[in-house]
Amino acid sequence: MVSGKGVVGISVKAPDAGLLLISPLKISGAYNSWLSCFLGYDRPPVDRSESYPDLFMTLYKPSRRNFLLTTLGLTAAHMGRSAPSAPLTVGQVIDRIKANVGIPWREQTVDNLIAGSLEQPVTGIATTMMATLDALKRASAGGMNLIITHEPTFFTHQDRTEPFLQDPIYQHKRDFIAKQGISVFHFHDHWHGRRPDGIATGMIRELGWEQYADPQQPKLFTFPETTLARLAQGIESKLKIRTMRVLGDPNMPVRRVLASWGNVGLMHGIPYVEQADVIILGETHEWELVEYIQDANAAGRKKALIILGHLVSEQAGMKYCAEWLKGFIQEVPIGFVAAAEPFWRPDQPVR
Amino acid sequence: MVSGKGVVGISVKAPDAGLLLISPLKISGAYNSWLSCFLGYDRPPVDRSESYPDLFMTLYKPSRRNFLLTTLGLTAAHMGRSAPSAPLTVGQVIDRIKANVGIPWREQTVDNLIAGSLEQPVTGIATTMMATLDALKRASAGGMNLIITHEPTFFTHQDRTEPFLQDPIYQHKRDFIAKQGISVFHFHDHWHGRRPDGIATGMIRELGWEQYADPQQPKLFTFPETTLARLAQGIESKLKIRTMRVLGDPNMPVRRVLASWGNVGLMHGIPYVEQADVIILGETHEWELVEYIQDANAAGRKKALIILGHLVSEQAGMKYCAEWLKGFIQEVPIGFVAAAEPFWRPDQPVR
Repeated sequence: MVSGKGVVGISVKAPDAGLLLISPLKISGAYNSWLSCFLGYDRPPVDRSESYPDLFMTLYKPSRRNFLLTTLGLTAAHMGRSAPSAPLTVGQVIDRIKANVGIPWREQTVDNLIAGSLEQPVTGIATTMMATLDALKRASAGGMNLIITHEPTFFTHQDRTEPFLQDPIYQHKRDFIAKQGISVFHFHDHWHGRRPDGIATGMIRELGWEQYADPQQPKLFTFPETTLARLAQGIESKLKIRTMRVLGDPNMPVRRVLASWGNVGLMHGIPYVEQADVIILGETHEWELVEYIQDANAAGRKKALIILGHLVSEQAGMKYCAEWLKGFIQEVPIGFVAAAEPFWRPDQPVR
Repeated sequence: MVSGKGVVGISVKAPDAGLLLISPLKISGAYNSWLSCFLGYDRPPVDRSESYPDLFMTLYKPSRRNFLLTTLGLTAAHMGRSAPSAPLTVGQVIDRIKANVGIPWREQTVDNLIAGSLEQPVTGIATTMMATLDALKRASAGGMNLIITHEPTFFTHQDRTEPFLQDPIYQHKRDFIAKQGISVFHFHDHWHGRRPDGIATGMIRELGWEQYADPQQPKLFTFPETTLARLAQGIESKLKIRTMRVLGDPNMPVRRVLASWGNVGLMHGIPYVEQADVIILGETHEWELVEYIQDANAAGRKKALIILGHLVSEQAGMKYCAEWLKGFIQEVPIGFVAAAEPFWRPDQPVR
């Protein structure tokens, strides 16, 4: 089937989403009860060995000092001033991201404000891998009104909205965002562009692979010799993936692994095959790179491919993003909203 | 990760593959022993209820009449002539396909001769879903020197070769094809374009879904009410799929199902969601149609997605293609070479 085998990039257009503004003072005044309501239970500090149950949400609590300042309607940035501080705005958060990401901001990028406004006061920030409607609902129910998402909100890499203006699912999502007063910032290109890549940093930490990483080639890992099946089983268990797919001889000895999180196109993927025994990625086309790696095996080269699923292959990178934001944003709570793995397999249905 | 999120179509270029020609008379004279060698066992006529073990190959035997003609070095087309017939060529097979496919041949198409030559005498025809090196090896070992493949030979929809000229896996495959004297014909657009779609016909027959098909809308099926989990389990079992993925509430009631075999892009897929409870397809992007269907559910619409895997979602369409070819090609044996499902899952490794 051909449909959609060619994809054409189209310029970004943000939806026209009106906003209901929520004062951050309302939040700060009731911060403690809000926190309990949001989490539903007291949560210990983030443990990197823990992965994601379906709708798990980690909240990175502000420090006690900042909590007190926030409760008083003050921010760290304004300490020492006598007047109450102005609330932190979406635009200020984006400016701080630009100032801290460590690379020049690109002219051509999908990293834009997709919904909301730069002037909106921020009540809380949620990072997520993909701003699905479900993730937006959970973030909003927790009082977060700035969502920082790695993947699109509106179904295309460029968050195009023109094709969907009459679409009921698009309209429902757009209207929910507007009604809840949410701003959404797409943070893809620069989070990958950062050195080291923010997604890779989060994934490596989640997997506990720091000791195996090649400092010269950050996608490469050298492991004590194992087999493909054991490597795959370890990743599946660590990331709690339900629908991982593996290509290659399960008994093949494995030492060199190359991980490229997210989608990998053919021409990016082919050079990886020379560099490692195993390629790990999020998604790729079956009639392109998958055929190539099958052929490598038929040609006598022992090569393997592990397809994690796009979402689970980058998710921990946005968990780490919440931590990173905390380094330069102390005025509002910052949390990570895990998007659920979309799939289950027929012998283990998941509601 | 962005790499490869835009794909640009490039015009077709066939590789420069020399050929070792094999006389069809050599084959026809030893047809019986060749047949046994190829199959390794006597095979009953094709049973549609049977699916594909890994490397299963079905051979559609010529009729007894044509078998005798072939053994005598004659062809049906030349009956009554006194001189021995000229061997059937690749070009003649392609001309008969064009004459029988039932739609005008397109000017812009990927359906081209990818390797070999139009003048090559054909010793046998193998249809396959994807001309992987492994599938080519098995077809060639069985004496077939014309491979009719639905998916690409050289890793891109357009079978581009320029990017791979220095690539060792490409070179190995190209050289194998040349050394074995194989011709490869890409048969994608017109097999889908045929009414009814040749791939759909084969898949529906394989699944035994003829009675549920909507004659007005050939992608649509209406089933006696079942649940999503039961539908998915039935398909998994019938097509013997190892790594199927399902999205949606397993208990949701299901009646209307839309199947679009192969790859489905976002803009093709969205209208399907309105038309059915469940969309079945081969592969699609997680950040596009998968997000859209997740959002449809979060917006209160009960919708499901079953991703079969690209190869297994079209495979039976090329099994049927072998049957179809037999309707107008009697001079040479015609078989179907199943390409293996590329993947296994970590808890059930497959060598």
